[in-house]
Amino acid sequence: MDTSRSRTGPPMGAHIVKRFEDELQQIRLRIARMGTLVRKQFDEAVEAVTRRDPALADETVEHDAQVDRLEHEVADATVRLLALRQPVAVDLREAVAAIKISSDLERIGDLAKNMAKHAHVLSRSQYTSSLGRIGRIGRIVSQQIERVVQAYMDEDAEEALAVWRYDAEIDDWFNSLFRELLTYMMEDAQTIGACTHVLFMGKNVERIGDHCANIAGTIYYLVEGMPLVERRPKGEDTAFTDVEPPSSEG
Amino acid sequence: MDTSRSRTGPPMGAHIVKRFEDELQQIRLRIARMGTLVRKQFDEAVEAVTRRDPALADETVEHDAQVDRLEHEVADATVRLLALRQPVAVDLREAVAAIKISSDLERIGDLAKNMAKHAHVLSRSQYTSSLGRIGRIGRIVSQQIERVVQAYMDEDAEEALAVWRYDAEIDDWFNSLFRELLTYMMEDAQTIGACTHVLFMGKNVERIGDHCANIAGTIYYLVEGMPLVERRPKGEDTAFTDVEPPSSEG
Repeated sequence: MDTSRSRTGPPMGAHIVKRFEDELQQIRLRIARMGTLVRKQFDEAVEAVTRRDPALADETVEHDAQVDRLEHEVADATVRLLALRQPVAVDLREAVAAIKISSDLERIGDLAKNMAKHAHVLSRSQYTSSLGRIGRIGRIVSQQIERVVQAYMDEDAEEALAVWRYDAEIDDWFNSLFRELLTYMMEDAQTIGACTHVLFMGKNVERIGDHCANIAGTIYYLVEGMPLVERRPKGEDTAFTDVEPPSSEG
Repeated sequence: MDTSRSRTGPPMGAHIVKRFEDELQQIRLRIARMGTLVRKQFDEAVEAVTRRDPALADETVEHDAQVDRLEHEVADATVRLLALRQPVAVDLREAVAAIKISSDLERIGDLAKNMAKHAHVLSRSQYTSSLGRIGRIGRIVSQQIERVVQAYMDEDAEEALAVWRYDAEIDDWFNSLFRELLTYMMEDAQTIGACTHVLFMGKNVERIGDHCANIAGTIYYLVEGMPLVERRPKGEDTAFTDVEPPSSEG
């Protein structure tokens, strides 16, 4: 599986190498499972808001404990893995990557749980504007989660780079949502409560995108041995432009 | 420094043990420096908004690169540390803790940078309500950062637990701010833009509190060898209550 990178540690019995590779594969599989779970959490949170389904939102909140447990399992297994033998640089990079990626996935699960709470409130309100936008970006971000977890399993630096670059689109999307919501709130004060929930959901989606980009950076470092330093083409920071109502901006 | 926990690894030369302890201390000091830096970033972001100082806000944004560099240094030094000798369980817990804590501190820096961007916008607007509240909670959260970093240096599980428990207060604060901002926005549509920036600043403060609680949990696990599982007394989830205007709630 790992023919491209030489291991230069002390000589070891073949059974130790075998056991090490097996343990490493177990860690990878646990991370893949975390990925599947948090993606499901995220998809359900998005579905709960677009289908206006408070029961589904509640289920999503419940799932979070499983993700937290998996993160602890990954950390423990990584510790066991390293204890198996005198680790060499590449093993340590694997270990650091496993801990960082599982931590990012745990945060994604956390943000999805938070989204589900907002979805619960929104599904009980009369407000429906912008929810379709959440649904559309949701499909894109869901793919980002899937792609980046697959890139980790495949140790595919190119695919990781593609995920990382795509994050700028999600930032642009959020800025556009922010602008739209400001307009709605100014036009009709009755929508303000609901709009702030949509705003938080949107911010959570954007942050989940950021965590996918973090994971992509970790994969890149793991495979290439150097940090990903290219500057992403950042979209305009609409969310940080002036706060006066649009009419006064001319 | 670490007399309470026995190391049961293979026998080693005294000079290796010494070098190991020295390297570990270097990592701790780097983490302490990260802590000092992100606390400064956070304090400046809060000051930029309360003093309405856009130049200070811009400075805070600039500081972030230094924190990111330190996080990479901690990860690299941890890898070098583990390569020094066959690690035993307690060393590995130290390594995992260093990586997790530096990652949480990096996120705090990131959130402070984000706060500074909102502070920049707010310091150029006419809006001043709620800014005093940001200043007051800012002093509390700044202490949380300082206390949790000190608890790490002292390996003080009790102090970590105190920081972790205190996080519920910060959550309550955010819920109360959220409610207040909704009222302002509904009363005067001209404040909506500014209020959403205050809302995001408040959310960032709350998340910084969450990261302090995460760090506290990591310290607890490092020192006690078991996860912190006690359920925090969560305040009421005001931010997730119904979204209709207050008048309709009776």
